[in-house]
Amino acid sequence: MTYTLVLLRHGESEWNAANLFTGWVDVDLTEKGRAEARRGGELIGEAGLTPDVVHTSLLRRAITTANITLDVADRHWIPVKRSWRLNERHYGALQGKNKKETLEEFGEEQFMTWRRSYDTPPPPIEKGSRWSQDADVRYADLGDEAPLAECLKDVIERFLPYWESGIVPDLRSGRTVLVAAHGNSLRALVKHLDGVSDDDIVGLNIPTGMPLVYELDEQLRPTVPGGTYLDPETAAAAAAAVANQGR
Amino acid sequence: MTYTLVLLRHGESEWNAANLFTGWVDVDLTEKGRAEARRGGELIGEAGLTPDVVHTSLLRRAITTANITLDVADRHWIPVKRSWRLNERHYGALQGKNKKETLEEFGEEQFMTWRRSYDTPPPPIEKGSRWSQDADVRYADLGDEAPLAECLKDVIERFLPYWESGIVPDLRSGRTVLVAAHGNSLRALVKHLDGVSDDDIVGLNIPTGMPLVYELDEQLRPTVPGGTYLDPETAAAAAAAVANQGR
Repeated sequence: MTYTLVLLRHGESEWNAANLFTGWVDVDLTEKGRAEARRGGELIGEAGLTPDVVHTSLLRRAITTANITLDVADRHWIPVKRSWRLNERHYGALQGKNKKETLEEFGEEQFMTWRRSYDTPPPPIEKGSRWSQDADVRYADLGDEAPLAECLKDVIERFLPYWESGIVPDLRSGRTVLVAAHGNSLRALVKHLDGVSDDDIVGLNIPTGMPLVYELDEQLRPTVPGGTYLDPETAAAAAAAVANQGR
Repeated sequence: MTYTLVLLRHGESEWNAANLFTGWVDVDLTEKGRAEARRGGELIGEAGLTPDVVHTSLLRRAITTANITLDVADRHWIPVKRSWRLNERHYGALQGKNKKETLEEFGEEQFMTWRRSYDTPPPPIEKGSRWSQDADVRYADLGDEAPLAECLKDVIERFLPYWESGIVPDLRSGRTVLVAAHGNSLRALVKHLDGVSDDDIVGLNIPTGMPLVYELDEQLRPTVPGGTYLDPETAAAAAAAVANQGR
């Protein structure tokens, strides 16, 4: 008996295309991002995978990706669960800033620390500022738990409770689970599943729109470390491109 | 204290456009249908309504309508619940047949009985036939409860348990509830809410893509009988057009 978990990072968003730090800002997919979501649905269908339940973040780019992917895979009718704990890393005061300009202004070392440090968050976002979410009703219940900036370690800490309470029970009940989320919330999940070290996780990139399938054993350990991309060649090229963002 | 319930019939589907009996056949929206869903989202947003939870059928045309409408209304992130009990009436052996040809073949009386009789279902669909759902995994759990043809009375009987167990608890908890569904499942709901007679309900038409808002009192009785369309003029014209289908 194994459990099947499918991870899907949303396709290109408007701010990916504009090279802006996005975080919790709720931007839409581009037409390319929608095409990636359709392709993800085709790959899931061709692989004969049949997600029984989908988990998404509260952000439009992951939600729309899930909607499109499941529609193409003819699984649009399955139950849907959502949690802010699957959101992208909160990018703090960097939200809304251009990546290239930030690199030039602050230099390579500071830039890479903000982007890739495991435990150093960017500066906190100012409450009431343009790209802050403190007035967003969908996070009203969080109170002081609502982040103002996150490093990857913070993402892991707020993601794991949902993994245990929201996702694992679906897996244990024998359901094939699709998680449609973001670069950093999925990285948090991969770190947990594969036991990736704090150092190594910062170099691990998850490409957009490529379903990544994990078969998990009774202890929820991957039977194939790192999982299996449904389209491995394209995935490797896309991951390399992500690593070069901001250059 | 009143409760707010918003009903939304899906926009034009491919088989609406082709004038075919659809029922449980899972056809897609047309581009016009998607535009109707967007307009529905604009009307909900302009009215200041904020759905807190959405209930849909298991059919793509209602699910996609809900997805588009909520995205436009900036409520894409709310919880989603689905049930086959919100599906369109099962049209039995008529599924996949052209409405005009059916009218010509069987005559006005038989045609209108199948379309509008309260308690006479069309002939049952043959299991294994092209437009049957008996091999559809999403209904696998229904067993003998899966209908082979339904009259409106049948729809009401299978819808009401979900109203009581699925929708009413959300209303009682103070949530604004959006129900994205179909001509006949929404008619079942309107009949129940407004106490419409078996005779009168057959003449009541619900236009597509027009949010219909009910404010309900403590006994879940409408404070305004028949509810309020967010776009009443267009709704009246559209309802008249529905009444003339097949002519």
